[in-house]
Amino acid sequence: MKDHPKTMNGAESVVRSLHDAGVDVCFANPGTSEMQFVDALDRTKLMRCVLGLFEGVVTGAADGYARMAGKPAVTLLHLAPGFANAAANLHNARKARVPMVNLVGDHALRHQKYDAPLTADVAGACAPFSDWVRSGKDADSFASDAMEALRVASGKPGRVATLIAPADIGWNEGGQMAPALSPDGPVPLDEAALDQAVAALSQGSSTVIIAGNGVLEDMTAMALLRGIADRSGARILAPTSNRRVERGQGRFPIAKIPYPINEAIESLAPFSHAILIETVPPVAFFAYPEKPSVLLPEGCETVTLAGVDGDGPQAIAALADRVGAKAATAPAVEMPARPTAGAITLKNIAAAIANALPEDAIVVDEAVSWGGALHAAGDVARPNSWLSLTGGSIGIGIPMSAGAAIARPDRPVITLQADGSAMYTLQGLWTQAREGSNVTTIILANRAYQILKGELHNVGAQPGEDALSMLNLDRPELDFVSLAKGMGVPGRSVEDVRDLMQAIEDAAAEPGPFLIEALL
Amino acid sequence: MKDHPKTMNGAESVVRSLHDAGVDVCFANPGTSEMQFVDALDRTKLMRCVLGLFEGVVTGAADGYARMAGKPAVTLLHLAPGFANAAANLHNARKARVPMVNLVGDHALRHQKYDAPLTADVAGACAPFSDWVRSGKDADSFASDAMEALRVASGKPGRVATLIAPADIGWNEGGQMAPALSPDGPVPLDEAALDQAVAALSQGSSTVIIAGNGVLEDMTAMALLRGIADRSGARILAPTSNRRVERGQGRFPIAKIPYPINEAIESLAPFSHAILIETVPPVAFFAYPEKPSVLLPEGCETVTLAGVDGDGPQAIAALADRVGAKAATAPAVEMPARPTAGAITLKNIAAAIANALPEDAIVVDEAVSWGGALHAAGDVARPNSWLSLTGGSIGIGIPMSAGAAIARPDRPVITLQADGSAMYTLQGLWTQAREGSNVTTIILANRAYQILKGELHNVGAQPGEDALSMLNLDRPELDFVSLAKGMGVPGRSVEDVRDLMQAIEDAAAEPGPFLIEALL
Repeated sequence: MKDHPKTMNGAESVVRSLHDAGVDVCFANPGTSEMQFVDALDRTKLMRCVLGLFEGVVTGAADGYARMAGKPAVTLLHLAPGFANAAANLHNARKARVPMVNLVGDHALRHQKYDAPLTADVAGACAPFSDWVRSGKDADSFASDAMEALRVASGKPGRVATLIAPADIGWNEGGQMAPALSPDGPVPLDEAALDQAVAALSQGSSTVIIAGNGVLEDMTAMALLRGIADRSGARILAPTSNRRVERGQGRFPIAKIPYPINEAIESLAPFSHAILIETVPPVAFFAYPEKPSVLLPEGCETVTLAGVDGDGPQAIAALADRVGAKAATAPAVEMPARPTAGAITLKNIAAAIANALPEDAIVVDEAVSWGGALHAAGDVARPNSWLSLTGGSIGIGIPMSAGAAIARPDRPVITLQADGSAMYTLQGLWTQAREGSNVTTIILANRAYQILKGELHNVGAQPGEDALSMLNLDRPELDFVSLAKGMGVPGRSVEDVRDLMQAIEDAAAEPGPFLIEALL
Repeated sequence: MKDHPKTMNGAESVVRSLHDAGVDVCFANPGTSEMQFVDALDRTKLMRCVLGLFEGVVTGAADGYARMAGKPAVTLLHLAPGFANAAANLHNARKARVPMVNLVGDHALRHQKYDAPLTADVAGACAPFSDWVRSGKDADSFASDAMEALRVASGKPGRVATLIAPADIGWNEGGQMAPALSPDGPVPLDEAALDQAVAALSQGSSTVIIAGNGVLEDMTAMALLRGIADRSGARILAPTSNRRVERGQGRFPIAKIPYPINEAIESLAPFSHAILIETVPPVAFFAYPEKPSVLLPEGCETVTLAGVDGDGPQAIAALADRVGAKAATAPAVEMPARPTAGAITLKNIAAAIANALPEDAIVVDEAVSWGGALHAAGDVARPNSWLSLTGGSIGIGIPMSAGAAIARPDRPVITLQADGSAMYTLQGLWTQAREGSNVTTIILANRAYQILKGELHNVGAQPGEDALSMLNLDRPELDFVSLAKGMGVPGRSVEDVRDLMQAIEDAAAEPGPFLIEALL
């Protein structure tokens, strides 16, 4: 263990122990109950502290950081309402099995019995959005609780771990350093499941392999998986939303289960057998009248070769070994023709983005209704990491980009951002400006909750004027260039596809954040 | 009961029943699971639908509406993450005993067992921020559940009632109209408590009467309370934060318990007896090392003449009757001298605001660190209704103003808005623009979480550069005029106190929203 003071308060013991265990970034929106942490972070200078002007920015950024760093940052949040503000993006992280460690300040233990203005059930608020919740008991054991939170978060699969920190256990002396604990490894491969998977592969093109999470981040596993598919005739699909997919030229394109309910059902209809690797059986995003919740056809024989707690790449290696498959060679893909002048449309936007995406870009995809069209860009562009909205809770794109840029300052970040969703956590632009992050935010300005118009049809309604007024954002029009300027981010508005590409190329080549309002 | 269709779906039965019971405004940020409500609101045209671009705007606006309308609106929210986004301002409403009815869409009942991307424990998420939670069971009973929510919310005290609405009970036919239910009346006056209060008053200036909630909204009660104090020598105080106080010339000034811990303790130190009316014993906002949580001095004899569930004005009338007190006459107050040119400072800002506040203004006070100085303005200005942040969860000012303006379009709304807090729910400006509300937002731009710097000192820390960087908002500086422009609200930046007053007077006289960035 490194050199630490002999006596310290609880907060300092947590900061020092987390840092010894490898946590060196703190995303924070602190309040009074976290002042000891602010003080400890200040005195120790061990962590990079990144401020968000809203808690949803803090957790979205921590998610983006973890997806790209492969390890958690720590967040600093404030009481039940502050946790609630952070919760939507914790929900997204939890669904993606992203490792997260939250420190949530609470009133001092002796103060909790009073109905102070900010008193509420903190543990109750945390539970629905955390995989693990514990409340710190005293200064002595505070750091070992933090190490347990880090252990839980960092296991397989990643988890959202929330440690509630009463103010007094932070300020009390008696903090004790605690050593890092080994996280849970993956569940071992189930030989019976392997046999079943081998049998399923003998069904050829009637079999679908659905692979998620770690598989999509691992190009060796993807090459082997493609080899298995080539040999057996099975189809490969990815879940609709994924925390990170390594894509682009030299990688293996993988189709995903579409979001629209009819297309999703159709995409899986041909299969009598399914092999799941690091994912769960796919279900409809929402229920609809007269539509099934389960997407695989009735009677489809499903084998989970590796669950979300398993080791997908290892399972794929074992399966390849059993069927004698070798790693495939990545297909040559051609960059689509660079669009010439004209309006930005669903037809040309994927080609435009593919052409403009810089090498090694991190793409943050909260394109929502334009996501289907844009997704194609990732396969034909230069190599990129593609990060999606995983829990359906909008408002992650701008913060996630801020956090991804903290994890990988050497790579340009491009955010494909729906306008309605951007307004949930727009404050993240300020964090991008403060940190000088090389993030280019492309606002896809269709001036509507466009995706909800489709949903209104799906439930059988014919929207009238009042309904549309709840789904349209055009009265008044949002001016994203002014909004960005207000937070210190320069920007430009474009209507022509050629100007869009030029703006992306200019912005990615320059350091610091930039915002492009793409009028659709 | 009014004329309604013979058959309707569950959602329509809820909309129609709520409307029959007097609810005619819906603040909404709908998602897919609420599409039936969007459709029903559209077809029936019974309610005014107000869209917020973030759920915290929706609930903050519903709070402001209820404080000024004296009855709840209904909110439309979406699943657990959407509820979480709304929760901070529900927390504020709950602490202020403001009546609120939330409809929270959930997945269809049959879909809830699957781990869909947006699946989470909705009821668990709602519980810490609601006084009452129920989940709708079927289309037939859906409207009667909504009527029970309205009954609970509208009682004494006001409550936050949350009805979870699975999508299918909204879209299923079989909706049944349900009649309005009578809310709980106040708890009857306790004669023993009245005797104790009479005895406490005999202690003269050693007695404090702390009056909250309904008392502060009732000028007749305030006149009688002042008469009781004048006769007995008792002191009157209000809680630190209050949902609505009728203030200004011709009303009765009432000091409030200060927010800073030392001043709060000092303000109550002189008293051996306390009489509570529509409030609870005051406690410290936060706990601090070596400071008490309970603010009344040890051994202070405390009698609750009326609890938060009691009828304060009636209790005051009974007490006045017992001690032979008559209604006092409101003191003549002099408008402070209009500040001449110069920087905007803690010394001149109260006089500036007092002079500039228009007649019958609704003042929304989220001034936070400048709140102490600004509060004085309310007593000397023209008559006004003063609405405060009640639960300590920042980010209510801009939405609350939007909602107050919907309730009282005939009155100008002036928002005293701290800059850090403004950034939590800035999206409310767009709602103000959309609704053409006469709201003037004054951003008190000190470019810091200023109040937290004081809190850092209170816990014994000496802030260094890293600590200050988590509390300062000056890198980059926020440009609120650009931010407002981006949401369709015109604005102006002022540095001189005379320009500030002129800008307020200009903006309040014009229809529609305006933002003034006051550089401090």
